[in-house]
Amino acid sequence: MKTMEELGRRAKGAAAVLAAAGSREKDRGLLAIAAALRKHTPEILAANALDTARALEAGMSRALLDRLSLDEKRIQGIAAAVEEIVSLPDPVGRMDGGSVRPNGLSITRVRVPLGVVGIIYEARPNVTVDAAALCLKSGNACILRGGKEAIETNLALAGIMGRALTEAGLPGDAVQLVEDTSRESANRMMKANGLLDVLIPRGGGGLIQAVVEQSTVPVIQTGVGNCHVFVDSPCDLEMGVRIIENAKCSRPSVCNAAETLLVHREVAETFLPLAKAALDRHKVQLRGCPETRRILGESVLPASEEDYAAEFGDYILAVRVVDSLEEAIDHIRRYSTGHSEAIVTSDYGHSRLFTQQVDAAAVYVNASTRFTDGGEFGLGAEIGISTQKLHTRGPMGLGELTTIKYIVLGSGQIR
Amino acid sequence: MKTMEELGRRAKGAAAVLAAAGSREKDRGLLAIAAALRKHTPEILAANALDTARALEAGMSRALLDRLSLDEKRIQGIAAAVEEIVSLPDPVGRMDGGSVRPNGLSITRVRVPLGVVGIIYEARPNVTVDAAALCLKSGNACILRGGKEAIETNLALAGIMGRALTEAGLPGDAVQLVEDTSRESANRMMKANGLLDVLIPRGGGGLIQAVVEQSTVPVIQTGVGNCHVFVDSPCDLEMGVRIIENAKCSRPSVCNAAETLLVHREVAETFLPLAKAALDRHKVQLRGCPETRRILGESVLPASEEDYAAEFGDYILAVRVVDSLEEAIDHIRRYSTGHSEAIVTSDYGHSRLFTQQVDAAAVYVNASTRFTDGGEFGLGAEIGISTQKLHTRGPMGLGELTTIKYIVLGSGQIR
Repeated sequence: MKTMEELGRRAKGAAAVLAAAGSREKDRGLLAIAAALRKHTPEILAANALDTARALEAGMSRALLDRLSLDEKRIQGIAAAVEEIVSLPDPVGRMDGGSVRPNGLSITRVRVPLGVVGIIYEARPNVTVDAAALCLKSGNACILRGGKEAIETNLALAGIMGRALTEAGLPGDAVQLVEDTSRESANRMMKANGLLDVLIPRGGGGLIQAVVEQSTVPVIQTGVGNCHVFVDSPCDLEMGVRIIENAKCSRPSVCNAAETLLVHREVAETFLPLAKAALDRHKVQLRGCPETRRILGESVLPASEEDYAAEFGDYILAVRVVDSLEEAIDHIRRYSTGHSEAIVTSDYGHSRLFTQQVDAAAVYVNASTRFTDGGEFGLGAEIGISTQKLHTRGPMGLGELTTIKYIVLGSGQIR
Repeated sequence: MKTMEELGRRAKGAAAVLAAAGSREKDRGLLAIAAALRKHTPEILAANALDTARALEAGMSRALLDRLSLDEKRIQGIAAAVEEIVSLPDPVGRMDGGSVRPNGLSITRVRVPLGVVGIIYEARPNVTVDAAALCLKSGNACILRGGKEAIETNLALAGIMGRALTEAGLPGDAVQLVEDTSRESANRMMKANGLLDVLIPRGGGGLIQAVVEQSTVPVIQTGVGNCHVFVDSPCDLEMGVRIIENAKCSRPSVCNAAETLLVHREVAETFLPLAKAALDRHKVQLRGCPETRRILGESVLPASEEDYAAEFGDYILAVRVVDSLEEAIDHIRRYSTGHSEAIVTSDYGHSRLFTQQVDAAAVYVNASTRFTDGGEFGLGAEIGISTQKLHTRGPMGLGELTTIKYIVLGSGQIR
């Protein structure tokens, strides 16, 4: 098994080659990966069978098992996703500023790869390919550290990708897997300053929290979403019902799903029963403030302070009636994780105030929070959704996997 | 003394007001600060006298004492710098992307303040005003934690700025000073997730290293510069002499000063004596490779591995003769801190290879590394020079004190 130093040294070498590679070469590497995944599907499925068998034996939950399991169709989907990345524009080399200074120095700000990107994730093997492909297209080498549950599958995938890259004339070390899935290997990645330029955790809140707290390598914090939908007065109540139903129920486990519904007192009496009828169809459990329970009845559980702070990730929704737009904004300011926040309103001034005063990666007027996504935002694929303010915020596409470099051309200038 | 929680809570409140403030209001606040600094110069000088007296007693070095000391002229300079920030464009509200999506959603990417910026610095009281003014203009509240050597001066400056802001109708809590200058107060800032959005250390390598290692708040690493000048073959040798003399000697203590001179073997015999003559005028101590010492003689000390890795910050220069452009690039790749790197060449192809393959915030052709500076790059003032790749790289001006927010306007879209 390679040490972190060895992985880092190899990645740095590969990163230097990738940084200089043109889009055409990188795309050729991506197409080679997609073709190899399709060709070696039996090998991947055999490895995945080992993982799932062990997981079954260990009594893994059905939901987790579903994330871990691959079949032929899923592998086709993973390969197709790689091919889609080929069609995205290369962010490297884009010039996003510059000028000729009064002393004649010509300064250009060019986008360049970050270098070596570390990714720590859990049991989803599709992340192995997704992350590698996004890093490759943006000229970065990556060091991937997936969960122990998926180690056989990940070894197969990483091996296939590495060989495909070598055959396509690119460094196989551009994609490396950490074979040691112990906690210590994750800890070593978090302290690998000088080897890793950035570390991105992808997974549950516990993993992300641990990486944020322990890493000395710069981290992009992703994906914790306590999102709110505020149904204002006046508004189109039916639109409000459609939006909260979609925001809560279309995929409750994801970070852009709504966790709390705020309702203006003036419309609560009419709106809440309509919303409840729609949410009942999905068996959503409501946890409400006293006013919500007065309107909807005692079958609604009382909401605690923790409920308003929670990212349920499930068919559970906290509900609160507020007196005003300002109270809604205050509530959001207090409990929001800065991911996605929505207002449903027909008042122009309220829409302006809400978008100006709510501090989040994405602020919506009359649309579902579920749109916070690289694909939906037109960035193509995404490597995660940043909920911190440094570097970037919201969906991270290829552009967010680059940094800048100033190129300064002179004719002997001194200062 | 206020606790970190109290400071953070106040800063968050002030940040919400500042984020909504227009450029005109913020500029009024800055002008009020500049006027108050001029008006209360005697108060500042009296406080500074307490600090310098204590420092003298404690036997502080002349260089440090000079950084700490203020006089009327310096205070005028600090006030003038604040007024210059007024004239810079406001980065907040700039739209740097967006589109109408196929489903009709209108998505705009807007620049917004980071929120609450923490700054940990050492004994230079001008940082207190500089940092506060840059944060204010970019709509951020700041929490400043200066060194204990300057506490009286900093208390006076922060008090004057806070009162000036209040009188100008802005929240006085936008600029707060941590009164506790113990190590514990710095540690608490580094763990103040949820209160601080970003932490910027400004000072020596030890301070920066400590913050990078211990902070769980996102950090921008600044200012460690082991910069190289490579004198290539062919090149204008006189230009080479001018550039290395300027890069090393114009201000050796700063991070964009050169620390190592690399010389192509083909020109070494002619170039090194010319360079030595120029550097001797500044009493620069040379530490060279065997080939350098063969050419320049035994008066040049031998360079160790540590010398090539060192940021001397002094009139000391490591020198190495290399066989090729590739060897120069390899040397830089090995020892560079990614700050500023320069080539002196008259070969077009070499200039392209160097700028493409050298990975640093600023890569120069035929100019001194000393230009890596917010003012010289046309950003106006700077809050530091980032040597990490996350968020930004190189000089950080007002734009780099902002993040983004997606504003999504819909008409009932669901996913």
